[in-house]
Amino acid sequence: MTDGGEQDFEREYADLGATTQNAMDIAETSMDIVRQFVPDETLADRVRQKSVHSMGDIEFQHLIEFTGSDALGDDEDAPVRAGARAVLDEATIVTDITMSKAGITGRGHDCEKRKAIGNGAELAKETGMTRTAASVLELDKRGVYDGAIATIGNAPTAAFALADCIEDGTRPAAIVATPVGFVKAEESRQRIRQVSEAYDVPAITNVGRRGGSGLAAALTNELIHVAKDVRTDELALELTAEARAARTESDSEDREDE
Amino acid sequence: MTDGGEQDFEREYADLGATTQNAMDIAETSMDIVRQFVPDETLADRVRQKSVHSMGDIEFQHLIEFTGSDALGDDEDAPVRAGARAVLDEATIVTDITMSKAGITGRGHDCEKRKAIGNGAELAKETGMTRTAASVLELDKRGVYDGAIATIGNAPTAAFALADCIEDGTRPAAIVATPVGFVKAEESRQRIRQVSEAYDVPAITNVGRRGGSGLAAALTNELIHVAKDVRTDELALELTAEARAARTESDSEDREDE
Repeated sequence: MTDGGEQDFEREYADLGATTQNAMDIAETSMDIVRQFVPDETLADRVRQKSVHSMGDIEFQHLIEFTGSDALGDDEDAPVRAGARAVLDEATIVTDITMSKAGITGRGHDCEKRKAIGNGAELAKETGMTRTAASVLELDKRGVYDGAIATIGNAPTAAFALADCIEDGTRPAAIVATPVGFVKAEESRQRIRQVSEAYDVPAITNVGRRGGSGLAAALTNELIHVAKDVRTDELALELTAEARAARTESDSEDREDE
Repeated sequence: MTDGGEQDFEREYADLGATTQNAMDIAETSMDIVRQFVPDETLADRVRQKSVHSMGDIEFQHLIEFTGSDALGDDEDAPVRAGARAVLDEATIVTDITMSKAGITGRGHDCEKRKAIGNGAELAKETGMTRTAASVLELDKRGVYDGAIATIGNAPTAAFALADCIEDGTRPAAIVATPVGFVKAEESRQRIRQVSEAYDVPAITNVGRRGGSGLAAALTNELIHVAKDVRTDELALELTAEARAARTESDSEDREDE
């Protein structure tokens, strides 16, 4: 924690997008409400909190999955650590469509933001595959996804295409995949989880039919927030979820003793 | 129905954003699933279908509200008719933030798309109000909201600001307001419904805490779809929801007689 103290931290944490007093008040109050219902111990908890905040639904915390591992292990914090490290390494953040890109904050990081859509038009025309799937394959051919943060909020076919690329050897630093809908959305996230586990590519996904570009952007923003807290020495990434939770518990015991 | 027949219509209706074969198949199948669970009789039903499609949640159909009236009456189709007419009149579509704007299709209409955010920075700084609220007041000062389609997907304070403008005499052609979250989101939509009824400004909103920019963009896109169907003579706007539902019913009775 820096000298700015609890209040500044809360403000920054609540919403990097909020800059005016009124907006910061709303973001703070909102995250306070969320924290009443979602645990606040691990990095994964921060992602769960963000999902609840973004979806306006307390129960959404139970729909988030964490897969893959990093050097520390395969605990649920692994994809958050990997994503935050990638932000600190100024990895490219690649979204499927414009909407997710628009929702990702431009502040608090030095990553290039880019979108896949708009690439691979020829391939889509030739094959009949979706424009987003073709755009992922096209960017992959150019090596864009290696070491990148891959954010997919809309198109199940983009998630399937990315999974194929990973099977073919591509290694994103982290994946956020939350396509929404009734056709192939759930299946596309299952497929991401499968390659995430098989090839150790850390991924944050959700289960069920819900999701969307807003959620994908919000979860990616949380990776940026975690990275920011590391950069300002408010947080260290060298802890597993279990160790972090244990430390939080002992912190609150300490406080009770005071 | 044009010569293209049922299949082409289904495709176009399912998703104006889908252009490749695979994307059209997904969009079709998805809307077929949605239609199993959401009525398909009125224009309001089309908006309900779109909400379900966008949110990946069958029950979301029950959370959509239709308020305000047009020349035909204050039935639930009124805001859809008003919105579609505004699209045909090439009204400006004004969103609160970049994300909603990015989600609104550029095809099938000649409306200018613009976003409020980025305007009114001075006002926000002076007053401490949110940047989006200030941006709405700033654009309103320039007369942008009169006759426009006002789409608010993210910021409750933008919805409150727009409601204040309406009380002060501004008359958007139609409103789509679906801010998401735990603080003031529901209240901001209640406020929109209140001015919608009081000043006869047709509005589509939702109840509860959920919502968001993706939903706002999807519902605005449905207004564009309805307008497109009017332009291609597949649909007439000169019917109330009741008349349209009755006609659908008699159509299916006719079919049963065949």
